[in-house]
Amino acid sequence: MRELTVDLGERSYPIYIGEGLLQSAAVYFTKHGISKSSKLFIVSDTQVAPLYLSSLEDHLQSEGFQTASVVVEAGEGTKSLAVLEELVGKALEAGLDRKSAIVALGGGVVGDLTGFLAASYMRGVKFVQIPTTILAHDSSVGGKVAVNHPLAKNIIGAFHQPELVLYDLNTLQSLPRREVAAGLSEVVKEGLIWDREFVDWCAGHSKELLALEPAALEYALYKGCSVKAAVVSEDERETGLRAILNLGHTIGHALEAVAGYGELLHGEAIAIGMVGSAKLGVRYGAPQEVFDRTKSLLASFGLPVRLPGHLDTGAIMAAMMHDKKFEANKMVFVVPTAIGQVEIRNDVPAEWVREIVEELKREA
Amino acid sequence: MRELTVDLGERSYPIYIGEGLLQSAAVYFTKHGISKSSKLFIVSDTQVAPLYLSSLEDHLQSEGFQTASVVVEAGEGTKSLAVLEELVGKALEAGLDRKSAIVALGGGVVGDLTGFLAASYMRGVKFVQIPTTILAHDSSVGGKVAVNHPLAKNIIGAFHQPELVLYDLNTLQSLPRREVAAGLSEVVKEGLIWDREFVDWCAGHSKELLALEPAALEYALYKGCSVKAAVVSEDERETGLRAILNLGHTIGHALEAVAGYGELLHGEAIAIGMVGSAKLGVRYGAPQEVFDRTKSLLASFGLPVRLPGHLDTGAIMAAMMHDKKFEANKMVFVVPTAIGQVEIRNDVPAEWVREIVEELKREA
Ligand SMILES: NC(=O)c1ccc[n+]([C@@H]2O[C@H](COP(=O)([O-])OP(=O)(O)OC[C@H]3O[C@@H](n4cnc5c(N)ncnc54)[C@H](O)[C@@H]3O)[C@@H](O)[C@H]2O)c1
Ligand SMILES: NC(=O)c1ccc[n+]([C@@H]2O[C@H](COP(=O)([O-])OP(=O)(O)OC[C@H]3O[C@@H](n4cnc5c(N)ncnc54)[C@H](O)[C@@H]3O)[C@@H](O)[C@H]2O)c1
Ligand SMILES: [Zn+2]
Ligand SMILES: [Zn+2]
Repeated sequence: MRELTVDLGERSYPIYIGEGLLQSAAVYFTKHGISKSSKLFIVSDTQVAPLYLSSLEDHLQSEGFQTASVVVEAGEGTKSLAVLEELVGKALEAGLDRKSAIVALGGGVVGDLTGFLAASYMRGVKFVQIPTTILAHDSSVGGKVAVNHPLAKNIIGAFHQPELVLYDLNTLQSLPRREVAAGLSEVVKEGLIWDREFVDWCAGHSKELLALEPAALEYALYKGCSVKAAVVSEDERETGLRAILNLGHTIGHALEAVAGYGELLHGEAIAIGMVGSAKLGVRYGAPQEVFDRTKSLLASFGLPVRLPGHLDTGAIMAAMMHDKKFEANKMVFVVPTAIGQVEIRNDVPAEWVREIVEELKREA
Repeated sequence: MRELTVDLGERSYPIYIGEGLLQSAAVYFTKHGISKSSKLFIVSDTQVAPLYLSSLEDHLQSEGFQTASVVVEAGEGTKSLAVLEELVGKALEAGLDRKSAIVALGGGVVGDLTGFLAASYMRGVKFVQIPTTILAHDSSVGGKVAVNHPLAKNIIGAFHQPELVLYDLNTLQSLPRREVAAGLSEVVKEGLIWDREFVDWCAGHSKELLALEPAALEYALYKGCSVKAAVVSEDERETGLRAILNLGHTIGHALEAVAGYGELLHGEAIAIGMVGSAKLGVRYGAPQEVFDRTKSLLASFGLPVRLPGHLDTGAIMAAMMHDKKFEANKMVFVVPTAIGQVEIRNDVPAEWVREIVEELKREA
């Protein structure tokens, strides 16, 4: 078992990563001030609940916690105000009060939705994350919680830090293959922005990671969370440094939007985006290895490194321009300068980006 | 013009109270860091907008601000997640970004809704309050923002402090009579919980206040905001002291719920509630004047001090028991100990409260 602390002053919290944590949740809950006298409210989704919800509830109840739970539809569509309203109704019916804690058992969708529920129910109650996807290592650090609006993703939300995060490696065993690789894409990203040694380690352990070998997984999630925690500690409210976490995301988000959410998983889209950013880095003078290693590393995880040819370049460019406000054809990009190191540039010519999008379609 | 500061450390903000502030809003906006380079988004309601919105927008635009505005239906029903979703859509269409500020021009309904919009849009943008009711002196101090759920009022919300509050006394001139008295009820409450001298002053100025005489109104709002600010500064997140602001509210909320929102305005319901609390105070040994003066003062503002006879006592009791969790028939109440002084008791026998509800129906 590994433990790390997300260091945010008064709002600091621990992340526990290990096997079998679901069966000892009560110990950690108690240690971190989750009360037995007020009801816990557990939110999970239709994929995760049948696998892990009843064992979690049984365990907690046998340890003297009172629990109520609700299962939402799996999928991004669930991150909506309509579902939030439903959950508030169920929480009221369950008798949740200000001292209650709300627990997210699931991936990033359940985490973001449930976190916003916890942030806004009675103007804020305690929140616990039990992430069940690899990608959710990302959403369990930093306190960004949100739901979507039909016109924009994650646009309605809050910063609401959990009391603790319990990452039970056993729950990851049931993850679909594609979700595993997509989650690892974001783990690799943490290395690429911050830690060359960890990139080397990832390159040497892709097989173990894809096979969900517990020791490797534990270390990878520990490192991934640690990098994100280090960045977030410096910039809780996302005013500066935190932007480096968006490596690969400018192109990635545009691809998700143009492909229609679903064709490309988030981690897949940003894999292609990271290859694009590496190209940009090399144009700005980074060593050629930045591109070569980024691409081969992502490919070794079975992630796409080529941009699907049927996606229209004009539409991709338009989606990027819409995503952020760019002045006079200059774009903001997180650009690698070396393996494990990036800079934020706000002067990237849109023309270069267009050329790179075209090149990405021709990648082998 | 009077100015006070709500003292909340980093989140401190000023309240300006005076005549004609709407026509010099730009000066205050600029002074408090509202940017001209990002669009302002003004929310108002169907009663207030026709009276004041275009003059505010014209003024701001002529001073170089970019503005967009949206008008919501007047009334409590507007404080909903459905309207929030609509507003987020309009804000996106207007091109609002993280540096934009959102302005509430209206009473407490517009203030609470717009404040929650500002708290959650892009996880939080700047917020400005321009209250146009007397009751909104209350909602402009303390940063409590929220919308309602069909099952509970103000249950989905946040703490989000404004950058500044501009209280233009001229806008209050168009307030319906009943709203004036109901707003003053909450002002009198600030005196009753905190400041005997201010209670004396209110007793001597009821005519001027009901006539909306600017000098008296300015002083009353200044004092009302000051008391609330003093309480909130000690207890921003409502963990203790802040509860004294609920004088008259336990019974008041129950009356609103049982009468059906609408029959009694909030300020009217809490007037009756405050008379009830005064009765309770006397039972606990407070001097008789606590009851006599509370009742005559509220009556002098034309506020109801008698509980409508057709409201069922059992239903009122049930609504109170539902409102908060009470142990074994002991209720929590804010109880006056003298004029300008209260205590919080958590041991009030439900039987006493029932008797007082009955007595309130018989008040002359
Ligand atoms: N808050 C943040 O900082 C942050 C960061 C990154 C991503 N996100 C959000 O996270 C979401 C994506 O997260 P995600 O990839 O975890 O998506 P997800 O929650 O939709 O999970 C992916 C799929 O896997 C299923 N699943 C989850 N755990 C499983 C398990 N253990 N076994 C079997 N199936 C399982 C889910 O039901 C779902 O169908 C997006 O909404 C994104 O916006 C948030
Ligand atoms: N956030 C807080 O701390 C807090 C505190 C107290 C009350 N509140 C909330 O405030 C709301 C009640 O506030 P309110 O009494 O101001 O209600 P309101 O906003 O509904 O205003 C009352 C009525 O007066 C109209 N009106 C407003 N200003 C006017 C003007 N200048 N001229 C003519 N008509 C005008 C409105 O359109 C409305 O019809 C409730 O929703 C309550 O929950 C919040
Ligand atoms: Zn991501
Ligand atoms: Zn009130």
